[in-house]
Amino acid sequence: MTAYDPDNIFGKILKGDIPSHKIYEDDDIFAFMDVMPQSTGHALVIPKTGSRNILDADPQVLANLIQKTQTIARAVMTAMNADGLRIAQFNEAPAGQTVFHLHFHIIPMYDGVPLQPHTGQMADNDQLSVQAEKIRAALA
Amino acid sequence: MTAYDPDNIFGKILKGDIPSHKIYEDDDIFAFMDVMPQSTGHALVIPKTGSRNILDADPQVLANLIQKTQTIARAVMTAMNADGLRIAQFNEAPAGQTVFHLHFHIIPMYDGVPLQPHTGQMADNDQLSVQAEKIRAALA
Repeated sequence: MTAYDPDNIFGKILKGDIPSHKIYEDDDIFAFMDVMPQSTGHALVIPKTGSRNILDADPQVLANLIQKTQTIARAVMTAMNADGLRIAQFNEAPAGQTVFHLHFHIIPMYDGVPLQPHTGQMADNDQLSVQAEKIRAALA
Repeated sequence: MTAYDPDNIFGKILKGDIPSHKIYEDDDIFAFMDVMPQSTGHALVIPKTGSRNILDADPQVLANLIQKTQTIARAVMTAMNADGLRIAQFNEAPAGQTVFHLHFHIIPMYDGVPLQPHTGQMADNDQLSVQAEKIRAALA
């Protein structure tokens, strides 16, 4: 497998070179809104320690990452008043991975609402900002 | 959220009341082939401690579960000669959850091969048996 390259878009978000709608941050974990959401409230959780995906991740980093994903998932469910949610994690391009920094998707699901396809369309920044604030409030 | 009900199909597999194509087992974790696979080699990893999904899971159980999922995912990748894989975990019916015992899907992906829809069609038992044996061998 190709080695981790820190010069990816999430690496740049971690360095602060690219802005994001932050939900949560601690010494090890960072969470923010997906700018190309598949549903309203679609969030991403990443470790600060770089790995390409789950295949090369440090097991301790991974354990912490899923525990924080759980906490944030509950907050997304509450804040978005969702009816369910999907946790998804893609490994390598044939699986749909487009950013090669390990990340868990938290995708809220709503009764009768199909997922939006990944069109490359950016979401409205103001809407993402409001959603991030709601999720942060649910986490607090 | 509804409480965990041990009388679900994975609970019955854990009790040995329903057969499965086992890949891995230890004191806390059980892994087996999905009988309605979305791709060749689709595997499931579950904790022996019951929870409905990630929302009510014990964080320590969850940490162990994702670490074992990582180990098994690597074995699936090797054994199936896959080009990538998806890790997926669904919470509540609107998200596609059909069995209410926490589980991670490991779904191998192959270049140019779309996922099979969940038709309710059972896979061939002999094929699942061969796949399980290959994955066990890759784990060993």
